[in-house]
Amino acid sequence: MPATDNPLVITTSFPVRYAETDAMGVVHHAAYLVYFEEGRSHYMRAIGSDYALLEADGYQLPVTEVGLRYAGSLRYGQQVEIQTWIEADRSRRLDFAYQVCLPRSDTVLVRGFTRHVWTDRQGRVSSRPARWQALIPGTVV
Amino acid sequence: MPATDNPLVITTSFPVRYAETDAMGVVHHAAYLVYFEEGRSHYMRAIGSDYALLEADGYQLPVTEVGLRYAGSLRYGQQVEIQTWIEADRSRRLDFAYQVCLPRSDTVLVRGFTRHVWTDRQGRVSSRPARWQALIPGTVV
Amino acid sequence: MPATDNPLVITTSFPVRYAETDAMGVVHHAAYLVYFEEGRSHYMRAIGSDYALLEADGYQLPVTEVGLRYAGSLRYGQQVEIQTWIEADRSRRLDFAYQVCLPRSDTVLVRGFTRHVWTDRQGRVSSRPARWQALIPGTVV
Amino acid sequence: MPATDNPLVITTSFPVRYAETDAMGVVHHAAYLVYFEEGRSHYMRAIGSDYALLEADGYQLPVTEVGLRYAGSLRYGQQVEIQTWIEADRSRRLDFAYQVCLPRSDTVLVRGFTRHVWTDRQGRVSSRPARWQALIPGTVV
Repeated sequence: MPATDNPLVITTSFPVRYAETDAMGVVHHAAYLVYFEEGRSHYMRAIGSDYALLEADGYQLPVTEVGLRYAGSLRYGQQVEIQTWIEADRSRRLDFAYQVCLPRSDTVLVRGFTRHVWTDRQGRVSSRPARWQALIPGTVV
Repeated sequence: MPATDNPLVITTSFPVRYAETDAMGVVHHAAYLVYFEEGRSHYMRAIGSDYALLEADGYQLPVTEVGLRYAGSLRYGQQVEIQTWIEADRSRRLDFAYQVCLPRSDTVLVRGFTRHVWTDRQGRVSSRPARWQALIPGTVV
Repeated sequence: MPATDNPLVITTSFPVRYAETDAMGVVHHAAYLVYFEEGRSHYMRAIGSDYALLEADGYQLPVTEVGLRYAGSLRYGQQVEIQTWIEADRSRRLDFAYQVCLPRSDTVLVRGFTRHVWTDRQGRVSSRPARWQALIPGTVV
Repeated sequence: MPATDNPLVITTSFPVRYAETDAMGVVHHAAYLVYFEEGRSHYMRAIGSDYALLEADGYQLPVTEVGLRYAGSLRYGQQVEIQTWIEADRSRRLDFAYQVCLPRSDTVLVRGFTRHVWTDRQGRVSSRPARWQALIPGTVV
């Protein structure tokens, strides 16, 4: 799966919330974008580069593009199991990829990506923070 | 209904969103707090005192308490019809009350209130803005 | 814009909700998927083919793929103005496209698409409902 | 704190999600109702009486009343730490109480309750399920 700059894959797991289901009885499709964000936040904390710290340093990482494909669905009572990795880590751009699998299986229910640019607090595009560059595993190479 | 400082009642109407339903097939109970906020926003725009303008002036109106009673529920395909009025307009405190009715009927599905304090941008309690005092109908009396 | 099966473009407009903003001060990127859904619901009501009725007939239209590009952002106090059209209307598949513009301008803030399959209540892929085929403008041709 | 039928207090902890913050920079007040639901779900799983199982048995537990008081707020980068307990466990009614504390402290940020009735799938009020009665610690007494 990781045809990527960076071989690190972080798994995040948490229960489906009832509020995230809809009248079809399954998790609403927009909730997966929030799950992706949760996977991304967890990834950044896991490598020691908490997004809250980056924001405190004056950086933001707004989303410029997303794509999601849905092959199956989750229900209340199940765990969300999401794998997150970095697909591209450029000077001004950062791409994350994600897949949500059926718990304890390899069946992918939803896969997708989010593309981001580094900006300052005023929203002007900037280079990635030094703090990030030092921590991100791929940039060691 | 309005045992209140202020007789003005504003009705707001918009369709139930699919994302707001849950696996019980009805609107999730937390969505009504967002509906109340929408009713409150509409009320403030209707009297010419847009909350966005108040924020631009340096004021905030955080919520300090809420209460909701649920007697029935809405489904996708129905309209949310919400009535909003001011129950108390004090120097530092503002109470709104709300009821969501079955469309084209007097049957109340959900009723509730939200209590707010006026603060500045740093979150310090302040007196209500002059702009508000001038506009709010009750303060004419 | 509509390089599409169907020239009909429906505009839907409603205020940004405070709950939809995030700590960056703008509408959270996942909210646009809910706006798209609202545009799609409105489109279907506008052509006389309410999704709630299709569901009552035993049909569902789950999302199989989405894509969104973000060029700008909306804030609380602004109107969401979303244009919705059908990009492909196949026997088992339906593609909607959307753009959210800065109010009273041609500046596109967010554009995207959602792809759907027709299914029955058990989630089995089916052909599009007769009710839909009769109403959808493109199929008149 | 637990002036209650039942001394068991369950603590649930998870990170604040960025999507839950609003333009004030803090968690939106409606998100706490979803946090309460998450605390309640966790409580039920912890005592071996998963709400998903109860639903599969044909029971529902809709919310009939809620109340929340906000004394402080959480930000992105912090943990939600929520304590959940049962305040009343009657034949047809169930009351949960909650408090969200500043992580690693006794400072209560938000406290509240949710009141529920037991119903069958058609929404008719029923007695609490035998499965529940057998498991709930308070009913041992």
